[in-house]
Order: sequence, then C-alpha cells, then structure tokens
Amino acid sequence: MSTLDLGEEAELKLKWLGSYGKDPEGGVSRFLYRKEWTDAQKVLAAYMRQRDFVVKYDEVGNLFGRLEGSRYPEETILTGSHIDTVKNGGIYDGQFGIVAGLLALEHLKKQYGQPLRNIEVVSMAEEEGSRFPYAFWGSKNILGIAKREDVENMVDFEGIPFVEAMSKAGFSFRSADAKIRDDIKAFIEVHVEQGGVLEREGKSVGIVEHIVGQRRFTIELKGEANHAGTTPMSYRHDALYAASRIVCVIIEAATGYGEPLVATVGKINAEPNIVNVVPGKALFTLDIRHTDKKVLEEFTAEISAKMETIAKEVAVELKTSMWMDADPVPMDQKIVQVLERQCEKQNLSYRTMHSGAGHDSQIIASVIPTAMLFVPSHNGISHSPLEYTRPEDLAEGIHALVGALYELAYRS
Amino acid sequence: MSTLDLGEEAELKLKWLGSYGKDPEGGVSRFLYRKEWTDAQKVLAAYMRQRDFVVKYDEVGNLFGRLEGSRYPEETILTGSHIDTVKNGGIYDGQFGIVAGLLALEHLKKQYGQPLRNIEVVSMAEEEGSRFPYAFWGSKNILGIAKREDVENMVDFEGIPFVEAMSKAGFSFRSADAKIRDDIKAFIEVHVEQGGVLEREGKSVGIVEHIVGQRRFTIELKGEANHAGTTPMSYRHDALYAASRIVCVIIEAATGYGEPLVATVGKINAEPNIVNVVPGKALFTLDIRHTDKKVLEEFTAEISAKMETIAKEVAVELKTSMWMDADPVPMDQKIVQVLERQCEKQNLSYRTMHSGAGHDSQIIASVIPTAMLFVPSHNGISHSPLEYTRPEDLAEGIHALVGALYELAYRS
Repeated sequence: MSTLDLGEEAELKLKWLGSYGKDPEGGVSRFLYRKEWTDAQKVLAAYMRQRDFVVKYDEVGNLFGRLEGSRYPEETILTGSHIDTVKNGGIYDGQFGIVAGLLALEHLKKQYGQPLRNIEVVSMAEEEGSRFPYAFWGSKNILGIAKREDVENMVDFEGIPFVEAMSKAGFSFRSADAKIRDDIKAFIEVHVEQGGVLEREGKSVGIVEHIVGQRRFTIELKGEANHAGTTPMSYRHDALYAASRIVCVIIEAATGYGEPLVATVGKINAEPNIVNVVPGKALFTLDIRHTDKKVLEEFTAEISAKMETIAKEVAVELKTSMWMDADPVPMDQKIVQVLERQCEKQNLSYRTMHSGAGHDSQIIASVIPTAMLFVPSHNGISHSPLEYTRPEDLAEGIHALVGALYELAYRS
Repeated sequence: MSTLDLGEEAELKLKWLGSYGKDPEGGVSRFLYRKEWTDAQKVLAAYMRQRDFVVKYDEVGNLFGRLEGSRYPEETILTGSHIDTVKNGGIYDGQFGIVAGLLALEHLKKQYGQPLRNIEVVSMAEEEGSRFPYAFWGSKNILGIAKREDVENMVDFEGIPFVEAMSKAGFSFRSADAKIRDDIKAFIEVHVEQGGVLEREGKSVGIVEHIVGQRRFTIELKGEANHAGTTPMSYRHDALYAASRIVCVIIEAATGYGEPLVATVGKINAEPNIVNVVPGKALFTLDIRHTDKKVLEEFTAEISAKMETIAKEVAVELKTSMWMDADPVPMDQKIVQVLERQCEKQNLSYRTMHSGAGHDSQIIASVIPTAMLFVPSHNGISHSPLEYTRPEDLAEGIHALVGALYELAYRS
C-alpha cells in the first residue's frame, strides 16, 4: 500500500471513530463511561474481532486487541493510546494512536503473518481528566497504580458519581488482589505533537526522548486597593503592577534560558478589577516545564528570588504555592534507538525531540520500557475541532510504528 | 461652640442622616428616587423648615434651603453636595457637604443674623451614577444641561425605567423652557478627600484648586493562544506578556512624570485564562488623570508610542480605544483666595491641592464661580462603610466654610 493510500485510510478511520461522540457544538466530546465512549469502545472491539484479533476488556474498560505470538506467548509488545477526548476535541488526539496501532497490526499480519511475540493495540479508557478531575485513569489501571479512594467520591460536572458512571457503563474497580500484567515488554504510543515544531521544520515524525517535568504554581500578591484618582503614585501598593513586573521577569528569564525550558503565565485575575481602583490583589498561575529535573529546580529558585525582590520593591505581600511537581520522564533508550533505526532505514523525515505535554506514556514508562512517536499538528493546534495532520504525515508515523513493531515482535 | 462640639454635632447629624438608607449588608445604600432617598430629602426639608429656611425642590428633586438676603435678593451664595450614595457607601461622601452647609447656615444666622445675599444649602439629587448609568443628574439639572433623551430610555439594575422611578418619587423632567437660575453667584462644595494626602500630611482642610481631567481607555492585545508545554518560547505571541510589559511601562512612566499625574491599570482579563495555555488575548483598562489637559495629551502620546513598540516586539495586535475624555476643571481663583484668607485668619490647618476624583463642582464650575473644601478621609477610604473623618477635622472644614460664606454673603 502506498504511503498516501495508507494516510488516507488512516484519515477515513479517524473520521469514522470520531463520529462516536460528535458534538453538535463542534468536534468530538467523548467522556469516560458516557454512551459515546461505550459506543466507541464497542465498535473498536467489533473491528478488532473482524480482523481476528483476540479482544479483551480489563475491569475498568481498557480495551485490548491482540495478535498472538507463536514463540513467546508470555511476551507482549503494546501500542495504542486513549479513547477519551476533551470537550470539543479533535479526531487526532488519542484516536490516532489507536488507529495507527490497528493499521500497523493489519499490515504486519498481512505482510509477515504471525509474530513471535504478542502484539496488542490498546484503546485506553481515559487520559484527559475531562469528565472527572482525574487524569490517566486508563494507564494507571494497566499498571495497577490507580487508587480507588482517589475517585470513589468524585462526581462529574452534572453531579453523577464516578462509581455510578463506571458501573452503568458495565465496568468496576480493579480488584486489589488482581494480578498485574507482567507480559508487556515494550509500549510505543503514537500521538499528535500538539505543538508546531515538526511542521515548522518540515518533519513528518518526531521520536520522543523525554516527556517534560512540570511544576505549576499559584502566585498571589496582596497590596492595597486605592482610589485611582486620589492616590498619588508614590502612595500606592499596586498588586497588578507587581504581578506585571514578575510576569515580564519570568517570561524573559525563560526565553533567555533557552530550549527546552518553557514558562507560561496562563491565568491572571486582579481584584477588585475595576477601571478606577488601584488593584489590591493579583493572582496568577505559572507553569514551568523542562526535561531535566535539576533545571526545573534551578529555574524555580532563580525566579523565586526575583519575585521576592520585586514584591519587596513594590511593598506587596507575596504568596507562592506549588500545586504540581511532576518529574521529567525519559523514554527507553533501546526503543528510541529501534525507532531511529527504522526511520533511517525507511528514509522517513524525522527528528528526535521532547514532549512538552503529558501523556499516558509518562505513567507507563515508570514500569514498562516505553517510547513515543509524534506526527505533526497543523498550526500546533490540539484540543480543538481544528486539529489536523496531513495524510502523508499520518502514513509516515504508521510506517515508523510498523518497522519498530516488526523489529520488537518478529525477531527472536 | 467649641471646635470639638461642632465636630461632634456634625458627626451626630451624619449618623442621623445616614440612618435613611442604612443597608443590612453594611453602610448606606441610597439610590436616586428610591424610598430611602425620598425619606432622606423629606427629613432634610423638615429640618430646614424647623430652622426657618425657605425650602424648595426643583422639578427633578434637588432640595434647597435658603436664608434670605436683605439687600441683594437676586444674588445667592450656594453650598451643599449630593444626597445619593454608592451601594454600601459611607456616611461622609456627599452627606457631609449638606450637613456642613446646614450647620454653617445655623451658625451664621445665630451669630450674624440675616445676610445681605441669600445663602442656600442644596441637597443635590444625584452624583454617583449608582442606580442608573448616568452621573451628575442633580448638578446638571441646576444648570439646565441635563439631557432628557439621555435618561429617558434608561432602566436600573431591576429593570425599572428612569421615568417611572422619577415619577413615583413625585418628580418630573425640567421643562425645556423653564428659566435657568441666574442668581447663583458662587458655589462652595465641602467634601471628603477620598484620598490619603491630608491625613498623611496632618492637615484638616484642603482647598481645591483644580479638579483633574480624566482619560479612560480600553487596550486589547491579540496574540496567539498556544499549548503551554509544546510551544517553545520563541514561537509564542503571548498577549499577556505584551500586556505586562505595557503595564510596567505605563506605571513607571507615570511615576517618573511626577505629581499630580496618576495612571492606573485597574482591570485586566486574559483569554482563555487557563493555567496551561499561552494567552491569546489580553484586555486591560487605563485611567489617566492630571490637572492640565496638555499633560494628558502629551502623556497619552508618549505611552501610545511605547505600547506600539512593545506590541511590535512581541508580534501581537494592539487596539486602543479611549471612551472617556473629561477636561480638567480649574476652581474659581477668587473663591479659592477667600478660602485661603479664611483658613489663615482662623489659623486652620490647611493646604491647597487638586481633586483626583470627580465632583458636582466640576459640572457647576462651567457656569458658576465654584470652589471646594476637602476634609481628610481616614486611610484614604471612601465608597465604603469604613469611611471616617475625625470630628475635629469636620469642624475645621465647617469653620472654613462659615468664614467664606460670611465674606461672600454678609459683606457688600
């Protein structure tokens, strides 16, 4: 099958799968354990059965389709991604990892017959945290590290309890004494980049070497709310002015530090937020990411000191709280090398890179040798009905996956 | 009467008048034409009649109490302020100008008998724009410059039309051919400072020389919303970073310019305002005030140029719109001199200053020689139940007013 035909077939399958959960307001809204989600898993299971894959759900609803291995039945090479979406998401995020896996398995079976090791495609239950405030429900259950007590009392935005939603969809908690799978020897997740690096550089495939660590903070500044007309500049303790100075320092320090460091102030609120009152309070968030934990620590220390200096100069109180501290996750170097070799061999247009976004792979990598393949996101857009990847890029991603699965599952 | 007795009497009267419109959530909420407002005007009218003042309402509800002049019945010296409040306002803003006028007239009458010219205290209908989005309704009607068509289709926050509220309170529009009063030869408004200058400098009285001009702007910046993890710093068009740089430049330029220039960014909103998205849009307001129109123009031009430079550097679109442009209003120099003379003569603790806030006086000054007297606002607080002025300061303000009214109304 030509590269373009393969890409077009992938695109058709993405549209077909994306029709389950099509949102009248645009894109796909497919939340964990809702009818759209159950429907999507059901049609995937049916599709897998039609192709003679061995189909199995685990307790919480992760769906696996297996091509059985002839020589090493206790060894499995896993690929796939998550089936859930954000509200009004696109048809590539998550879905493409599943579709790429399905097409790769079909191709391998047709071309090379039965593998030596099992190859499985997984459609993971949940990654986004869109319905319930809990992300990575799918991958954490595969590893047996999801905590029942973390979700037991959760309700969604409509007040429906997690437990009720799960049970209605036909699933239940993983029993505490259930055996954790030890057959999975490698995991490769194919995903859209969700950024613009590949497109800008004209590459079709990104081989991920690290998933960044993230630190998230809320920073509060407390000054004094004052009348905008009757308070001379020198009497003011303007919380928004202090916040603005800090934002500038953070962005400029991050830019000066160089890649792959990114720092983002995404959210800001002033109080009372009225045209003619000097802001007495300002609150903003800070998101810092890097592939090296030491850099995260150093950069945090550097800007913390600068924030304190500014707060002192403007005479406002500073309160910083870190509410997320996720370490960077390196991908498995051996699988990364397999991917590089395959890209070279097949003459694919690729580069190595890091992932600035979080993925199921960062969970799985803690236990199972893991790597990721990216394909370009047009204009860097994701989590939007405007997500798009060219069919020829989809195809190159699948070719890289096929090559790697072959090397991992068909050779002794 | 001693200064302290006078101050305490003023405080008692402020509390008495403030009981009309006492808000269960704190302070006074007395909106134009509501029952609390009608009640307050009625008790003031009754109070004036008890003291043998000639009492008169105009068509729209401004209330006047007159001590008639013996020699120049066609000449009136006016004092007073507004009776309406903001929501949960204090008992000093507006009210004190009326109470000071009443106590001054009583004192003058008792001490010196009938004046040569009429002296009137006015309790003006409306200044704050708290119920309907229209300010200075009282003073604009005294001058005959309020426009019927501006309020005719207005409704309050409960949907009650202006016309219905006015008519229910027993008032109506000023008829177009009604004679505009030409007997008012001078107006002196006593008011709380609403800032902290007098208190910091330990002064009891401020003689206002200028009311500042104000320009208000909305500034919109449009960049590109991007994923906080996958968008390298160098690819970003961060609208909030651009806004932060502009805020710093504005505040620093205003501080550097020196008094009486003030510039305030009171309100800021980012979009989408989410921790992990680079802001694609930012909007903020800018309020600039100065006593000299030329400075307002120069400063606007200076920071406009700087804003454009920053927008270009960050590669975001800049849209600036000015939606308020009120010229500075000088007070009448002759009355200012009368006030200075009286403060000197009575050995009052005073300084000359400008008003950074808007007042009825800025409307009236366009037609009638006008000046203002300020008394301190404790901690600079106004528009709050926490408004407070020490009785001894209230008394000094009244003494200055008494002296000026004597000079203007008792001398040929």
